[in-house]
Amino acid sequence: MGADRDDAAEQGTVVTPSAEFPPLDDAERVALGRIGARWHGPRRADDLPVDPTPGRRGGRPLPTRFGRLTAIDMFTVAQPDELVATGAAQLPGNRFGRAVTRIRRTLVGPPLASSSVLYERMRKLVALPVLSSDLLSSVAYGPEAMLAVLVLAGSGALGLALPLAVLLVVLMVAVGLSYRQTIPAYPHGAGSYIVAGDNLGRTPGLAAAAGLMLDYVLTVSVSVAAGVHAVTSALPGLTAWTVPLGVLVIGVLLAGNLRGVRTAGNIFVLPTYAFVVVVLAVLAVGYAKAAGRGFAPVPPPSVPAAEGLGLLLVLRAFSSGAVSMTGIEAVSNAVPAFRPTEWRNARTTLGWMVAMLVALFAGLVGLIHLDGLVPRADETLLSQLGRVTFPSGPGYAILQATTALILLLAANTAFNDFPRLLFFMARDGHAPRRFLHMGDRLAFSNGLVALALTAAVVFVAFGGHTERLIPLYAVGVFLAFTLSQTGMVVHWHRRPGPGRRRRLAVNAVGATLSGLVLVTAAVAKFTEGAWVVVIAVPLLVLLFRRIHRHYATLHRALALHPPPPGPSGPAGFAEGEELPQQVRHLVIVPVARLNRASLRALAYATSLGRPTLAVHIAPEEAEADRFREQWRAWGDHLRLETIVSPYRSVIGPLAHYLEALHSSRPELTLTVIVPEVVLRRRRHRLLHSRAEQRLRAALRTLPGVVVTSVPVHVSH
Amino acid sequence: MGADRDDAAEQGTVVTPSAEFPPLDDAERVALGRIGARWHGPRRADDLPVDPTPGRRGGRPLPTRFGRLTAIDMFTVAQPDELVATGAAQLPGNRFGRAVTRIRRTLVGPPLASSSVLYERMRKLVALPVLSSDLLSSVAYGPEAMLAVLVLAGSGALGLALPLAVLLVVLMVAVGLSYRQTIPAYPHGAGSYIVAGDNLGRTPGLAAAAGLMLDYVLTVSVSVAAGVHAVTSALPGLTAWTVPLGVLVIGVLLAGNLRGVRTAGNIFVLPTYAFVVVVLAVLAVGYAKAAGRGFAPVPPPSVPAAEGLGLLLVLRAFSSGAVSMTGIEAVSNAVPAFRPTEWRNARTTLGWMVAMLVALFAGLVGLIHLDGLVPRADETLLSQLGRVTFPSGPGYAILQATTALILLLAANTAFNDFPRLLFFMARDGHAPRRFLHMGDRLAFSNGLVALALTAAVVFVAFGGHTERLIPLYAVGVFLAFTLSQTGMVVHWHRRPGPGRRRRLAVNAVGATLSGLVLVTAAVAKFTEGAWVVVIAVPLLVLLFRRIHRHYATLHRALALHPPPPGPSGPAGFAEGEELPQQVRHLVIVPVARLNRASLRALAYATSLGRPTLAVHIAPEEAEADRFREQWRAWGDHLRLETIVSPYRSVIGPLAHYLEALHSSRPELTLTVIVPEVVLRRRRHRLLHSRAEQRLRAALRTLPGVVVTSVPVHVSH
Repeated sequence: MGADRDDAAEQGTVVTPSAEFPPLDDAERVALGRIGARWHGPRRADDLPVDPTPGRRGGRPLPTRFGRLTAIDMFTVAQPDELVATGAAQLPGNRFGRAVTRIRRTLVGPPLASSSVLYERMRKLVALPVLSSDLLSSVAYGPEAMLAVLVLAGSGALGLALPLAVLLVVLMVAVGLSYRQTIPAYPHGAGSYIVAGDNLGRTPGLAAAAGLMLDYVLTVSVSVAAGVHAVTSALPGLTAWTVPLGVLVIGVLLAGNLRGVRTAGNIFVLPTYAFVVVVLAVLAVGYAKAAGRGFAPVPPPSVPAAEGLGLLLVLRAFSSGAVSMTGIEAVSNAVPAFRPTEWRNARTTLGWMVAMLVALFAGLVGLIHLDGLVPRADETLLSQLGRVTFPSGPGYAILQATTALILLLAANTAFNDFPRLLFFMARDGHAPRRFLHMGDRLAFSNGLVALALTAAVVFVAFGGHTERLIPLYAVGVFLAFTLSQTGMVVHWHRRPGPGRRRRLAVNAVGATLSGLVLVTAAVAKFTEGAWVVVIAVPLLVLLFRRIHRHYATLHRALALHPPPPGPSGPAGFAEGEELPQQVRHLVIVPVARLNRASLRALAYATSLGRPTLAVHIAPEEAEADRFREQWRAWGDHLRLETIVSPYRSVIGPLAHYLEALHSSRPELTLTVIVPEVVLRRRRHRLLHSRAEQRLRAALRTLPGVVVTSVPVHVSH
Repeated sequence: MGADRDDAAEQGTVVTPSAEFPPLDDAERVALGRIGARWHGPRRADDLPVDPTPGRRGGRPLPTRFGRLTAIDMFTVAQPDELVATGAAQLPGNRFGRAVTRIRRTLVGPPLASSSVLYERMRKLVALPVLSSDLLSSVAYGPEAMLAVLVLAGSGALGLALPLAVLLVVLMVAVGLSYRQTIPAYPHGAGSYIVAGDNLGRTPGLAAAAGLMLDYVLTVSVSVAAGVHAVTSALPGLTAWTVPLGVLVIGVLLAGNLRGVRTAGNIFVLPTYAFVVVVLAVLAVGYAKAAGRGFAPVPPPSVPAAEGLGLLLVLRAFSSGAVSMTGIEAVSNAVPAFRPTEWRNARTTLGWMVAMLVALFAGLVGLIHLDGLVPRADETLLSQLGRVTFPSGPGYAILQATTALILLLAANTAFNDFPRLLFFMARDGHAPRRFLHMGDRLAFSNGLVALALTAAVVFVAFGGHTERLIPLYAVGVFLAFTLSQTGMVVHWHRRPGPGRRRRLAVNAVGATLSGLVLVTAAVAKFTEGAWVVVIAVPLLVLLFRRIHRHYATLHRALALHPPPPGPSGPAGFAEGEELPQQVRHLVIVPVARLNRASLRALAYATSLGRPTLAVHIAPEEAEADRFREQWRAWGDHLRLETIVSPYRSVIGPLAHYLEALHSSRPELTLTVIVPEVVLRRRRHRLLHSRAEQRLRAALRTLPGVVVTSVPVHVSH
């Protein structure tokens, strides 16, 4: 873990397409030099039969079979021995693939070059809306989630909302202060995965990552659900279309992100500020009206109690309200995106964000209480508040529109963060390598698709109901909070410095409070859905560890070692440790019948000039005799071995025969040259037995066997 | 068509596993010799580095990685340069495949050697039940199918059964006489496909084949449906299980036939004779009782008319009754299975069969009329007749049991004939070649599975109702009858000989009557289901012709031609026409990163001693520089070309680069050597991008490119 982690910490949150090609470590570099020193082959032929850098000498190469496009259109010469591929060289060779690519490019735009990766810097006034949409949008569903639990104990229990809100404000401030300290400690930016892994070890880091991954998936599902609810509250006719609408929104978000919507896009600025302004207007008008009646609360309509008012219910309400804090970690991930001095600007921005969150959250809970509103299934509380506050005029419509918009942006935040998290995990070998790959729009397409699919499945499975999704939400979020802040405690503990004690204390308070919420949420909402998360996190951690083990083993198996001294012994070398002068060849050509395809394979094999053996598998003795007779008519140019397979199978006996040859001389490299008829039309392949593919699959696992496909193309 | 057809006629109905390996024709043999004469390569090396016939010199080779099995257990030495594979050599190399094979062998038995193909001869007394089960079992549902139509016009219309039965008997005799003449004309055996194709041309032959194929599928569905109905008539509690029971029976038939139930099995003898004896007993007892009351018919219970008694209804009833004749063609297919003199014994057997059919059919229709029975949905007519005739004692149970059994055997007949028909069609190139392959039990496994699947789908789609399947049945059968007998008319017309006129007349009568039934069935039952067959037959013919065209084009493309004279010109040769001395090599090794896998590919490439070029695809200029630096650290042993792919795709630019090289020197053979990491566990493959496979797929279509996979096995 150590080396991985240090690398990661050093590389910080830099994203580069070259991450797919990690550099060699020092031991490998030494081994490489020693292998090279003992490498003997024929003299390096610089006089290749063809110029490997076509177009270098100005000559125009022949057009290829694609007609319009010539090689010179596809590659430009950068320097001797280096070509640069143009956009045209990305197109697949077959017509179907080209059509698919064209459609995709129409949808998501032309490919972007690696050099277009932007490392942009944001002003604080831009950074604030970009990074806070996730956090501030939570007030659209957080207070409602809390009250929806309380009202189960009847309308009388709603009064408990005020003390719970005070507790939550304390929690927000504590966690905010705690994250504030992470920023200068990790000035290159670090999310919970890196902070927890760095200070607590691999498993806590992976647990934080698992929590965050669930958090991102649920951010999309919950934000889309709440956004659709904001729309259906204003337009009740659309209620029946909740699920298709939500899936459509997720699809649009996926398409936009595949196109590469930049986080910096100013699209964030207006909706976020508009939402804050509109909600503040609601609060101002609402409190003014309340002041008019001397802050006397309107009694809420009587709702019968469905459950008793017990401790468990209060805890459930508290942890439901705590989802208002999701998104608070965004700034600490994004420190390098600020203008210098980065950490200072980031810290200031975080302060503003928390202040705004506290103002909106506390203001809304208070006003809801004063207006005597009660959660209803068909309309959000914010919508009810809007109708009460702005009985006429465009105010209500603007409130609902900005709410839906900021929730959309919050979901979009997850589309930025989830693939980045997977990228960092893949860089450490904890997630499949394919998440390192940047698609042709420089987006992590695989991560985006994985997020959209998972979120859509969750959304559909829960019928798009925000309140059913909330119980799953809190556990993952607070797991990441707790681990990240515990990591900071360890961080301060290890590093002496001024103010270390105070900082340790602040993070310890944050970690403790987050941990309490985590336990509360996991226990109180276990049966309502939190059990899914409680089970999923350890399973994900196990999966990430398994993946890491696989890549580590593979890396060890493929790592370079210095060549063993001395000449080739009788036992041969391990695969991948031979030098060219140690390779001993035997070429084998399986021939089913004599036609152009098999004669081409035989000519190719013969032209290699190595010991060559032809093998024929016959179903009957009579057929074997007939084939030998044809072989003699051809001239008997190669040694022929016939294997009669009285049970008519071909692949099995051939594989076993090659294995027998290999086991009698393990140091031989057997090159099996398979004639392959390539048909143009896919449907025609149904008419053939695909014996080549089956043979290749059977030979794949044999040690010391190299398979060469010699194609004959049939244009029909 | 001509050559194919003559071959087929000559080879008659002989089935051999060597059919997958057709011999070369004369032109190809000449071309082969001329190619061989110009073939120059290194001297034939008889001193291979390993003995290609292991075990020849008595030495015991090393055990292979399968532990228990050594090569010597898998192969026995037949002669110098020839091995014979034993059963153990059939086992796949991987554990999963071996487990599957073991389970299959437990179910269907150990593999059978090609030499076990039986060309058995049958005595007439054995041949009669074997070949007649399909025909005679038809009386279990034929009369009922006719009466079920008549009763739609009310019980008064049932009297029409007697004149219709007389007409059907005339038809049976005419078709029987007609087929009787086919036997001596085709003493090697010939079904409708061969007779129609031989005399009328390819399309009529294929139409007959299409008709027969539908016939076989429906034979299975109808016989199983009628057999299950015989059981549920006796045990009404099972009625709800009709569909699963039928599917189970089809599955058992498939398993039995995959195991290789031989037609000759004496299992046919007893049930068929028993059925005939029991039905004759029913007739004897029934007519005796009727004689006791002076042959006065019992008036049938009054059934209200659902339709008017029109011509269409009578024609429908007639063509439904005609399904009693299905299976009459069996003897003419199977002439070579008789003892000498084959055709004479076959003809005699056919005579007996038709006589028995007429006796059972006419007897049953008459007795049903005398007893005043009416078709009912819940019980077959034969079952009703059994209950009336044998009110007590075991007679009724024996009747139902033998009926179910003979219907099972009739379905089994289709399992023998359908794969054979596909074999003959595949031999002519009208069906996929895979139907030539005899599985390890010497059965045509592919054809058996195709039949069982189709029949099961039809059975389920029609809910296992015999009367719904009947309308589809008649059209296919009588199409084959008509075409076969029209073919015989042409046959006699072309061949002068004694008695030719009389024979021509007999076949013309048979063809005309069959044709009339065909048209009647197609028109009268069009809306009831016959339209399926009317549409399916031309579509199948079209499909068979398309398949033939594909194989013919492929055969022309792969056929051997003499080599062009003179040395290689600059334009290169067509693929498959190069001689070894004309192959010009350029070896290309794509290298993504330097590790054991790629160094193995580089060592292999270098050891071939041909001009070699390494290619690296880099996502960014910086990565390209880093890779070149590593390359120099290794020693720069091979020329390296770097392609910067700023859009990060690898496969596209590489394929286009190779194509550009190819187009600048088309006579070069490019050997692309791809390092391939072979993982042991399938689930680990999910963690890798399968770039090798995608590269191979992209390169497959490029002309002049040979792909070599150099594997490195990771045991983890």
